[in-house]
Amino acid sequence: MAKSIYFFGSGHADGDTTMKDLLGGKGAGLAEMTRLGIPVPPGFTITTEVCNGFYAAGSTIPQVVRDEAMAAMDRVAEIVGTRFGDPSSPLLVSVRSGARASMPGMMDTILNLGLNEVIVEGLAKKTQNPRFALDAFRRFIVTFSDVVLGVPKARFEHALHEARLDAAKRLGVDASRLNSAELERKVPDSQLDADALRGLVANQKKIVLEATGKPFPEDPWEQLWGAISAVFKSWLNQRAKVYRNMHDIPESWGTACNIQAMVFGNLSDTSGTGVAFTRDPSTGERRFYGEWLPNAQGEDVVAGVRTPHPVAKTGTVDDAHSLEVVFPKVYAELCAIYAKLEKHFRDMQDMEFTIQEGKLYLLQTRNGKRTGKAAVRIAVEMVKEGLISERDAVLRVDPASLDQLLHPSIDPTAPKRLLARGLPASPGAASGQIVFSADEAERRAGQGAAVILVRAETSPEDIHGMKAARGILTARGGMTSHAAVVARGMGKSCVAGCSSVHVHYETQTMTITEYDESGRPTGEVVLKAGDVITLDGGTGSVYLGSLPTVAAALSGEFGELMVMADKSRRLKIRTNGDTPDDARTARNFGAEGIGLCRTEHMFFSDERILAVREMIMADNVDARRRALAKLLPYQRGDFDGIFRQMAGLPVTIRLLDPPLHEFLPNEQFEELHGASEDKRAKARKYLEKLAAAIGVSVEDLEKKNRALAEANPMLGHRGCRLAVTFPEIYEMQARAILEAACDVAAAGITVLPEIMIPLSLTRRELELMKAIVDGAAAQVFAEKGRKVDYLFGTMIELPRAAIVANELAEVAEFFSFGTNDLTQTALGISRDDAGKFLGAYVEAGIFAKDPFQTLDTQGVGALIELAKDRGRATRAKLKLGICGEHGGDPASIDFCNKVGLDYVSCSPFRVPIARLAAAQAALRADGGAAGSTTA
Amino acid sequence: MAKSIYFFGSGHADGDTTMKDLLGGKGAGLAEMTRLGIPVPPGFTITTEVCNGFYAAGSTIPQVVRDEAMAAMDRVAEIVGTRFGDPSSPLLVSVRSGARASMPGMMDTILNLGLNEVIVEGLAKKTQNPRFALDAFRRFIVTFSDVVLGVPKARFEHALHEARLDAAKRLGVDASRLNSAELERKVPDSQLDADALRGLVANQKKIVLEATGKPFPEDPWEQLWGAISAVFKSWLNQRAKVYRNMHDIPESWGTACNIQAMVFGNLSDTSGTGVAFTRDPSTGERRFYGEWLPNAQGEDVVAGVRTPHPVAKTGTVDDAHSLEVVFPKVYAELCAIYAKLEKHFRDMQDMEFTIQEGKLYLLQTRNGKRTGKAAVRIAVEMVKEGLISERDAVLRVDPASLDQLLHPSIDPTAPKRLLARGLPASPGAASGQIVFSADEAERRAGQGAAVILVRAETSPEDIHGMKAARGILTARGGMTSHAAVVARGMGKSCVAGCSSVHVHYETQTMTITEYDESGRPTGEVVLKAGDVITLDGGTGSVYLGSLPTVAAALSGEFGELMVMADKSRRLKIRTNGDTPDDARTARNFGAEGIGLCRTEHMFFSDERILAVREMIMADNVDARRRALAKLLPYQRGDFDGIFRQMAGLPVTIRLLDPPLHEFLPNEQFEELHGASEDKRAKARKYLEKLAAAIGVSVEDLEKKNRALAEANPMLGHRGCRLAVTFPEIYEMQARAILEAACDVAAAGITVLPEIMIPLSLTRRELELMKAIVDGAAAQVFAEKGRKVDYLFGTMIELPRAAIVANELAEVAEFFSFGTNDLTQTALGISRDDAGKFLGAYVEAGIFAKDPFQTLDTQGVGALIELAKDRGRATRAKLKLGICGEHGGDPASIDFCNKVGLDYVSCSPFRVPIARLAAAQAALRADGGAAGSTTA
Repeated sequence: MAKSIYFFGSGHADGDTTMKDLLGGKGAGLAEMTRLGIPVPPGFTITTEVCNGFYAAGSTIPQVVRDEAMAAMDRVAEIVGTRFGDPSSPLLVSVRSGARASMPGMMDTILNLGLNEVIVEGLAKKTQNPRFALDAFRRFIVTFSDVVLGVPKARFEHALHEARLDAAKRLGVDASRLNSAELERKVPDSQLDADALRGLVANQKKIVLEATGKPFPEDPWEQLWGAISAVFKSWLNQRAKVYRNMHDIPESWGTACNIQAMVFGNLSDTSGTGVAFTRDPSTGERRFYGEWLPNAQGEDVVAGVRTPHPVAKTGTVDDAHSLEVVFPKVYAELCAIYAKLEKHFRDMQDMEFTIQEGKLYLLQTRNGKRTGKAAVRIAVEMVKEGLISERDAVLRVDPASLDQLLHPSIDPTAPKRLLARGLPASPGAASGQIVFSADEAERRAGQGAAVILVRAETSPEDIHGMKAARGILTARGGMTSHAAVVARGMGKSCVAGCSSVHVHYETQTMTITEYDESGRPTGEVVLKAGDVITLDGGTGSVYLGSLPTVAAALSGEFGELMVMADKSRRLKIRTNGDTPDDARTARNFGAEGIGLCRTEHMFFSDERILAVREMIMADNVDARRRALAKLLPYQRGDFDGIFRQMAGLPVTIRLLDPPLHEFLPNEQFEELHGASEDKRAKARKYLEKLAAAIGVSVEDLEKKNRALAEANPMLGHRGCRLAVTFPEIYEMQARAILEAACDVAAAGITVLPEIMIPLSLTRRELELMKAIVDGAAAQVFAEKGRKVDYLFGTMIELPRAAIVANELAEVAEFFSFGTNDLTQTALGISRDDAGKFLGAYVEAGIFAKDPFQTLDTQGVGALIELAKDRGRATRAKLKLGICGEHGGDPASIDFCNKVGLDYVSCSPFRVPIARLAAAQAALRADGGAAGSTTA
Repeated sequence: MAKSIYFFGSGHADGDTTMKDLLGGKGAGLAEMTRLGIPVPPGFTITTEVCNGFYAAGSTIPQVVRDEAMAAMDRVAEIVGTRFGDPSSPLLVSVRSGARASMPGMMDTILNLGLNEVIVEGLAKKTQNPRFALDAFRRFIVTFSDVVLGVPKARFEHALHEARLDAAKRLGVDASRLNSAELERKVPDSQLDADALRGLVANQKKIVLEATGKPFPEDPWEQLWGAISAVFKSWLNQRAKVYRNMHDIPESWGTACNIQAMVFGNLSDTSGTGVAFTRDPSTGERRFYGEWLPNAQGEDVVAGVRTPHPVAKTGTVDDAHSLEVVFPKVYAELCAIYAKLEKHFRDMQDMEFTIQEGKLYLLQTRNGKRTGKAAVRIAVEMVKEGLISERDAVLRVDPASLDQLLHPSIDPTAPKRLLARGLPASPGAASGQIVFSADEAERRAGQGAAVILVRAETSPEDIHGMKAARGILTARGGMTSHAAVVARGMGKSCVAGCSSVHVHYETQTMTITEYDESGRPTGEVVLKAGDVITLDGGTGSVYLGSLPTVAAALSGEFGELMVMADKSRRLKIRTNGDTPDDARTARNFGAEGIGLCRTEHMFFSDERILAVREMIMADNVDARRRALAKLLPYQRGDFDGIFRQMAGLPVTIRLLDPPLHEFLPNEQFEELHGASEDKRAKARKYLEKLAAAIGVSVEDLEKKNRALAEANPMLGHRGCRLAVTFPEIYEMQARAILEAACDVAAAGITVLPEIMIPLSLTRRELELMKAIVDGAAAQVFAEKGRKVDYLFGTMIELPRAAIVANELAEVAEFFSFGTNDLTQTALGISRDDAGKFLGAYVEAGIFAKDPFQTLDTQGVGALIELAKDRGRATRAKLKLGICGEHGGDPASIDFCNKVGLDYVSCSPFRVPIARLAAAQAALRADGGAAGSTTA
């Protein structure tokens, strides 16, 4: 068997920072710090291999590991000048888990291990501080019992409460009317004296005996083996599994276990503890930043009972308590260390330190977490400082974190009341008065009010209200619901599918059911029109009232990072955009073309929808053509604007895709047969007006509406199926595109239209579609006396299309993978309906991630590869892209890069994210899989 | 270039029956008959290769072909003793297309080619029959103009009408009040004398000149080249393309063209014409059967203006006119010929003959079309007669034709009025009074009435009514709608998705919109409850009134044929069946196991549905378990019955598949918010009763109903997704299956349960499902003190499952391809919604056939092969079957055989069809692809 245990201490370490796989991140970091001559309490790391052996051996620690651990413990004791289990000079240790990657959700740290009835008295004597020793013991008992013995922390609360009551009596505090929290404030733990703590310890031990049937283990070695076992077992607990699933961490990695001599920041007034960052983790500014507390333990800093002081002076009144002022020598030492560490690890460090009676110890250093803004600034500045390469800078910033920079966000320090949680449909924070109709949204917004549009679900008729609102909240619908798609396109905050919200249009109110952690309803909140809420579209949270938000601001560093990224990027980044506005926004963000322009959204505005409905009601080709002719100038105008905005860049336009039923006033039809007489009358009036405008009867309208309703519209009469039955629709659209292209080209602007057919299945189908488009082109070119080059291509969004891609490529000059629909069909999951079970699927580890957010590479990805191989076998230069939601997801972009697509297309506000992710993908592909966790 | 033209005549022929590819079926048949010494008018065949060259040469006939044709024409003339184009002794010819396979929809025959102004007078002189010559000429002009010159027949109708009016005047008939059809009856063509016909010819020629701008071609050779070109062009016309698509006939085959000397059955009273079969095409009886008309042309027999006489005596009064009596010598000659032909072609022949002035000519012989019943009898008897082998017999019967034998059918001779046409959802004929509710169906059926249940669509709550009815008609829903699936399972006639039917429950009526051929509505028929209609579920037709039906009767020959089939069959045939009744029916038809037992249909009967709803309403695991415990004994009872019926045979049971929403009373919820106060009250009462029985409120029920509604239920929370969120459902089902298995095994009966998981996607998902099933098994076996072997397997019905089949096979011991859902997802087509465009897709040649009836081998089939290869790579003995609708479709069965599946499963009434189709597939696979048209 290989070496089980790696020692570190006194400037020597068996391991180093390269050994993360074996020692975990924490263990490797401690070893490296020790090697660097930084004062670290000595200790040792049990390897991840032991962890894996532990399961194999039926959850037992092999004797050879125990022997090595005992030897290592002796070396630790020797350095510290104590002995483990020796009451006269006891060595206490901490036991911590530490996997290859940082992993919350695993075992809590156990501190002060090695104490028992006898040793605690020895420690009291040695430190001359019985209160300190007993406080350490009672905390140890609770943690150990919870983590190792399975006696939940909560079972010890009552004992502490009793001890506080006793102390209150002693202190003359009237505790009779205080609840538990109030009592804690009046009688903090520091007011529990040694006797009180001794009594508390005795009570805690009784609780353990009752709960487990066995006395609390007094043997320090037994404590140690128990703690080590608990660390290893925690690798397999549910929370850890879920986290691993979410972050693609293989179970086979295992965790290491770190045992380290305790140092105490709460031993005296010359002691203390703190946390420091080598740069500001919030802004990225290069300044030494941190907080500390004198005479305190690490958990005190975290708990927030005492307010910590700054480490370095900041020019405020609190500078008198800063470490820089209070312990200038320690501060200077810390500064030297931080500079050394940052230089060594070439990244911003997050350090934990403790001062024990004037002596500084570093307990941990790691790459510090930071905001997106800080990540960008630090990466770019470190390049300028010569600390890292541009490659490092590009690889170091999490693309997803850029989202914060691109949208306003809620001030993280603001107090908030969470009302509900829905789907994070479109990022950004927004506050405003709630309104329940698009018209009302427009009206109030017109008066200058900030409004949030709340709907059971939105329909295309709500678009003007969505435009007017700051944010959108819907009770129903998924990540590709109308509300979600439109809001993302507008870059507007949206929380969708918030099922605890019930909208009552009649009373202009909404009821929000609140739940406790276990999912039981605890109550209801009723909000009426005009009440104010705040949405966080990045997390799906809905808060009561108006919360302060932090505006988006793109720094100079952001632009510099993008320039660095673009140097290594191979994939082109396009945008999904339906309007000249979208095109402008995306181009500003660096989009290199439009990958998906959905023509249907152009059908909904007031003047157009009537012509669309007239077209739907037409019962013969001529009537349909007449209605379509009315739409033609609008469509041409749309394309004209987009082509001008995207001058010189390709624009992929998808012909009509949704089922025609979506264009009919379904709500009115429903109300026409509803129980409310008032609504019936209103709906009839609306429909009568509509019918008259089209020249049909309400009954005809209704018949058509019924005839077009579908059981599964997702799999229905849509996409190019519409043009197989009604070729004149695509004919008009092709004409509008090419007329606009000719006009814009005539103005000396380069236009590169790519006409795309949705939902194709067979070669013959595509041939028919191409005949329509080419026919329209020939006519337009003859009329305009000018030719414009265009490409003809297709979406690949059905499994069959991927399978016969070789045949489709005989007709299509490009493919665009519509991974939303391809995921829905390959997996047989309707995105709108998946909410009920997708969570359970991710939790049970059936899906590693939501396949609608991150591409299911094994299933959907296999179809994409198949289509690529077959398509390129037919047409070597076939242009390939992806235009589903996955086009803006970093892990999916990595896959697209690997497979060899030409571009990804995403919503305008995700373009920078995609640029960075594509650069990272290219760099990782160059450098092998080493840097990748998404393989 | 190869030989372009094959001559036949006077006992000599260049070609023979083996040369169908080159000469087409008709040409090869004429050559073969000539070789056999049978009197056939001489002629020649232009090859299919010339046809293909014709397109390649820009639709021109090469000079070398013209030269050969002219030489062949001389040989024909020599034999007949005439000359083509010689007015003194003119040769007239027929020109016919003739492809490799019989293909309706191609060019009409052109008769009497070679006539012009001059020649017609020569013919009149030679035959001494001017009327005959002119009649031939005027008919020739119309046909030639229509087929070759593109002047539609209809344009000549007025000229004929005028000629009849003239004749009427001459005959003293008052024609002033007669419409066109009445006039034709009063003045038949035979009343048009030579002068009248001469005038008609002149008028027809004027019409041609007006329409084409050119005079009618007088040059016989010009006529000939035009006719040949028209034959070749007709191969590419729309009707022919559609037919080829439907029958998998490659376009590359091309058609041959036959030119043959005319003989005339209408030359005198010693002439005549007829059609005869060597056996009775209706019953298969071995008797010479046919009809003839003296002094008539072939088209007179077909047109039905004159009633033909029998060929052989039949013991009726008409025997005096039989050919046997009138022309005994000719009859004897014909008998000798038919015996020779049948023996030679080893199949029942359908012959056309003409007698010209006492001399018999055979114009065509081909394998005769026959009813399913006749096909079976002829095949089996021919084996007994030593004429064909068992292999031939099995290959010769079209499996689809067995459907007629298995269900009652409408008497084909009965006059009928077609009201509407829907989907042929479940075969069989049924007549009865219409009723609009299941309760009413049960009530009237209880009183002895035959009823047809008419619903907008059926739901599981209608099952008792469906059982009571003779047939089911629905306005909505596809071939896999509830009505269709259940009806097929019951072997009951069903016409589904009949969109011209509108059901009005309030008034207890239905309105049927009638359409003309071009699809324009022509009127409405209103039927009320109690009115009688007849359904033909095999064609989807709905007729007014009660039509006589012919009962199903399985003959001894049927059984003999099945025995022959089973000898060569490789695929096992199972059935889809949910009840002991289904199992018994299918076993009687020869099913070798149950391939799909759907457990959900067991959930719907009165006592059970309440427990199901209670389970749905349960808000925690315990409550769910309590409700499920109530269902357990019912389910166990169902399985007990099925296991006993299928003793010794495998039974594959699929665990719960449909979304829970289907089990809630959706109709009542809809009515609860409908406009009708009366219905609202009724629905509320129903729901209040239900809510009380479950112990919840109506509001809770409604909330749940809303929460479970889905946008695309097909892709929603169903299949094993239900068990991922609610494992206790499958736990109960597994327990019920295995308890029943133990009980039945205890009775000494062999049980072979196969537990099948629907809609699986990943290995982990299947592992979770297997843990549930194995857990239940362990408990049941412990309780019962007995073990029963069972298999664990999965449906493969999602593209992703096919892709990761290697992983699924690590857990699953068998796969069953659910090709309904696999087709829906691979093609992205909801079967229920496909009606609006699938027809257009087949018509445009995008799909060769409806992919829900015949497997889309290129797309869905590719996924099946992939899954087979990957699955068997993991588990060599993986059992593979198919249980979608395709399991009963012969072409799909052929594919399943080729791919190497172990079995197909189909509805009970299709088991014999599947047995025969599987035998044919195996025989074709043995004998190479030669005999297959489904390659």
